[in-house]
Order: sequence, then C-alpha cells, then structure tokens
Amino acid sequence: MRIVVYGTGAIGGTVAAALTHAGQPVTAIARGAQLDAIRAHGLRLRSPEQDFTVALDVVDSPQAARIGAGDAILLAMKGQHTDMALEALRAAGVTDQPIFCLQNGVANERRALRLFPNVHGVTVMMPVAFRRPGEVISYSKPQFGVFDIGRAVGGHDAADIALAEAVTAGNIAGYVSDSVMASKYGKLLLNLNNIVGAAFGPDADTGALKARARAEAEAVLTAAGIAWQDVGVSDARRVKHMSMSDVPGVEPFGSSTAQSLERGTGSVETDWLNGEIVLLGRLHGVATPVNAWLTGLAARLARQGAAPGSVPLSDVPALG
Amino acid sequence: MRIVVYGTGAIGGTVAAALTHAGQPVTAIARGAQLDAIRAHGLRLRSPEQDFTVALDVVDSPQAARIGAGDAILLAMKGQHTDMALEALRAAGVTDQPIFCLQNGVANERRALRLFPNVHGVTVMMPVAFRRPGEVISYSKPQFGVFDIGRAVGGHDAADIALAEAVTAGNIAGYVSDSVMASKYGKLLLNLNNIVGAAFGPDADTGALKARARAEAEAVLTAAGIAWQDVGVSDARRVKHMSMSDVPGVEPFGSSTAQSLERGTGSVETDWLNGEIVLLGRLHGVATPVNAWLTGLAARLARQGAAPGSVPLSDVPALG
Repeated sequence: MRIVVYGTGAIGGTVAAALTHAGQPVTAIARGAQLDAIRAHGLRLRSPEQDFTVALDVVDSPQAARIGAGDAILLAMKGQHTDMALEALRAAGVTDQPIFCLQNGVANERRALRLFPNVHGVTVMMPVAFRRPGEVISYSKPQFGVFDIGRAVGGHDAADIALAEAVTAGNIAGYVSDSVMASKYGKLLLNLNNIVGAAFGPDADTGALKARARAEAEAVLTAAGIAWQDVGVSDARRVKHMSMSDVPGVEPFGSSTAQSLERGTGSVETDWLNGEIVLLGRLHGVATPVNAWLTGLAARLARQGAAPGSVPLSDVPALG
Repeated sequence: MRIVVYGTGAIGGTVAAALTHAGQPVTAIARGAQLDAIRAHGLRLRSPEQDFTVALDVVDSPQAARIGAGDAILLAMKGQHTDMALEALRAAGVTDQPIFCLQNGVANERRALRLFPNVHGVTVMMPVAFRRPGEVISYSKPQFGVFDIGRAVGGHDAADIALAEAVTAGNIAGYVSDSVMASKYGKLLLNLNNIVGAAFGPDADTGALKARARAEAEAVLTAAGIAWQDVGVSDARRVKHMSMSDVPGVEPFGSSTAQSLERGTGSVETDWLNGEIVLLGRLHGVATPVNAWLTGLAARLARQGAAPGSVPLSDVPALG
C-alpha cells in the first residue's frame, strides 16, 4: 500500500516524513514554498528525541501522483481547502480507494462521502508545527503522536488496520477504532480552546471562558444525540505515548489556529471547530453565545492579520 | 425591507428584475459579463406574456451593497460558490439579517447556519434561463414561478411573510411554509432528472432511468427519516400559477444543469442533487448505484466541456 499524503503542512508533513523514514512507500502532494523546499532539500522532522531529514517523493497535484488501485489517500489540508482537493482527486481518476480524513473538526468526512464511497476518519492527537518550508516539528515523545483510525460510517476494515500498522512503524501510535467519529467529536471539544489560546495568548486567565465554551458544546452534543469519547488528558494513551516537551532550538508549541495567525494565512479553521458547535446549536435549539462570539472573533482576527495573543481578555463582552 | 439579491443568473436575475419592476427596493450583486451588461443596458426579463427591461441597482460585491440592519439577503449563486459568498457577507458586516437560500439542493441552509443565525429556505419552482448577459427568461405564465418560503430550522417568521408578499407583488407566487425543507427535499427529487435530460437530451427514452433514480432517493430519504413534500405535477399550485410555455424568439427551456453544460462553466450542481442522495445513502447504508453513476457522469461531462444531449443512452452500464 502506497500512502499518498495530500497536504504537507504540520500534520501531513510529519506523517509523510515519519513514514518515509520508516521505509513506507509515500508520495506527498505539496504546493508553494513547501514544495520547492522539499524538492531542493528534502523534509526535516524535528522532535524532542529525533531529528532527521528524508528525501521525500513529492508532487504538485493528485494528477502527478498517478494514484492507482493499491493506494491509500490521506487528506491533510486545512478544512477550507477540502472541497477543492476532493474535486482534484475525482478529476485524477480516484474512485474507491480508501480516503482518510486527518483534519480537525467533523465535517470533512461528510464532504468526502458525497464524492467517494470509501471514507475513513482519523483522530490526530499530535502536537506539531509547520513554521518554515522544508521543516516540521513534533513536540511529543516518545511517539510523535497518537491516531484513532476507522471507517467514517462506523466499524473498521483492512485499510484501517493497514494504516494503523504503517503509522505505528513510523513512530505514531495507531489505534483502530470502531467509533472513530466519537473520538473525533471528543477531539473537537479539545480544539474549542485553539482560538482562545490563539487570541488571548498562553498566559491569559481564560479558564472560565474555556469552561463555558465546553459546557455549551456538551449541551449541544447531548441535544443532538451525538456520542463523544474523551481523548483529553484522561486518555491513558496520552500518558503512554505523548509527553509534551520542548524541541532543542525551536519555538514552543502553539495550536494550529495560533500558527495560522502567525503565518498570516488570512483564514483559520475555527468555523469547523467552535463553528460546528454553533451550527449544531442552531439546528437543535441550544444557545451557544460563547462559541458564536469566538467564531466571529477568529474570522475578524484572520481578516485583519492580527498576531497571536494580541487580544486583551477585557475585550470579551458579557455573553448570554 | 431592501432585498439584496446575491447572484444574478437565471434565478437571481429573474427575482431581481421582477421585484424591481414591481417597485420593490432591490440591489443585485453580479459579476463579469452579466454585471457589465446590467450596468450598461439594465436587465431584461422575458416570459410568455411579459417583456420588460429594468434599470437595476447592481454592485460587484457585498461590501459595495452596504448591507444594513433592515435588509434581507437572497442567495442565488450556484452551490459551488456558496461558501465564498457566505465569507464575503461576513466580511461585509452581515450579522443577523435574514438570509434566504434560493438554491437547488438542501445543503446551502446548513452551510449558511454555520456562519449566520437567521437562515431561511426557499423552494424555487420557476423554469428560468440565463443564456445571454443582460437577459433572463421565465417560461412560465401567468406567474413567473412559485416559491415556498420558511425558516430553515422549521416554522416561519415576519421575514418569511414579508418576502412572500414582496415576490407575490412581483408576479412570483410566494407561499409561507412551516416545513420548507420538506418542500426542498421534494424539489430535490424532481431535480434528480436534471442531469438525465442534460446528458441524454430531451428526446431520449430515459423513463426507466429516471424511475430508478427516484426509487433510490425515496428509499434513502425513508431510511434517513427525512420527510418530503410532493411539489411535482400533482401540486395544485403548479396548475394555478405555472403553465410552461414557449417565449417568443427564445430557445426552449433546458434545466439549470443543461444550461451549465451549454455555457461550459466547467462545473454542474449534480453533486448537490443526485450527490445528496448518494451521500445520504452512504450514511444510512442504502445502495444508490444509479445516482452515483449519474453524479460521476455529470462531473466528467463538465470537465470535458461536453455539449448537452451528447451522451447516447447506450452508454448507461448495468447498474446495481
């Protein structure tokens, strides 16, 4: 099974480098400066305990990846780019190959299922960063991260087992799950904090705000009849595989949202995180003033090109 | 209430022209050749019984429309462009103004609800065409069409009543509905035929194929627990308001999908029509081979720039 990693930012880059390093056949699809850097110098993966550079097979499009019957496809672009990516995969002749959605949020699986029959979810618990072309960083040891892997509609099949084995060989602890979406909803609850940290900075006293955002979300999921699995600090696998540590010579970890603000990409994925809770609240009649405000704040900060941590906590209005 | 019509193709153009003609305050958001033509010569609406040209207030973006508290927004772009349009509305300062989704399919309301709280659905039964910049055509008399209008989450409010009155004054029969999504699912069942007519032409013997596509869809909606309302030929309102007729000097009617192929836009909305059935089938374990094949066919025809009616019926494989 060749693994085609579509999107070579923090998540996709780490997976592509880790699996290539372990001898797994990998092709990465990248663009822009990241594509140029990998072509010129390979891709470097730095972690608390490891530092290596791989010569990565990299192309600029699904067409160029010549995806065939035995391939598996990992979607690792941001949610804003999923639809375009799916269309490009269809145009490149992809039909019933397994497609794994590694992205945050829970909306990508549904979008992939519209065009493709064989869709899988992956809960990515992996504190990674992409700050410079040609280099990705994992802040976790001894493993780079932990994945839950299963079919998007529930259950698992041989492709899930194969991917779990492949990533485990690449120093990412892969677990097969029969309810991967419950695991992804659990991850979504954790990701509600991304914009809080990104907006107010790591040192602001945001405990109460985070607690309110989470309480809204739990009320929404309960009203919607959606199950979730706790994948937070109480998940024993985190203790076993994921000790957060500094990486020598590298800035400390910031969430993917903080990284997007830092890079000034003009958009953040909050619409697919806190915005998912807001949507479900509107569909099921549950008020979500805190998550709605945070979603609007994220859109504004991205548009304005604001720096991470630039919002004073006193900007939070009385909500609800 | 000013009505901001976002998207000025067949549907949006007809609504904008009809309401402007009736003296309703309207601003249209258009682009490209349509924008230029309307600015230069106004917008002409032709129907079996009417032919008029209005001087239409037209701008090129939501920002330029200066949307304020008293405005209502009608989304009339194709589904492929909804996400971009919603983001542009948010960036232009839209918050809780009523947003009406006039598009085919049932996915736009959900996408709008992610970003905005006050979302409404409109079932558009209106045989219209946009073939030349500066001109739209309705093939229906005595009314240009029939709309069902209501809140996307069910029920109705003052905005639905106001829009129904406004369109009725503009010769489009507006009905307030407390279950507009059931009406839109009923319309979706009719729209499954769009790609059939577009691919094989109006004269091909496609009755059996259409019947199979519809049977799959009804099985899927039943399995998903989704209610639909029959808005087809048995809907008495069609008899009262919508007699399909030729328009003097104009080509006969073709579905929106056929029109997209004709204009070579490179994409068609089949992913949101037959593709919606395929998605629901995958989520609920119901096989949809006919709709899946039609969805793939549509994508291929759009990519290849194929002409409407260019596929021989013998190309249909044994399905399921």
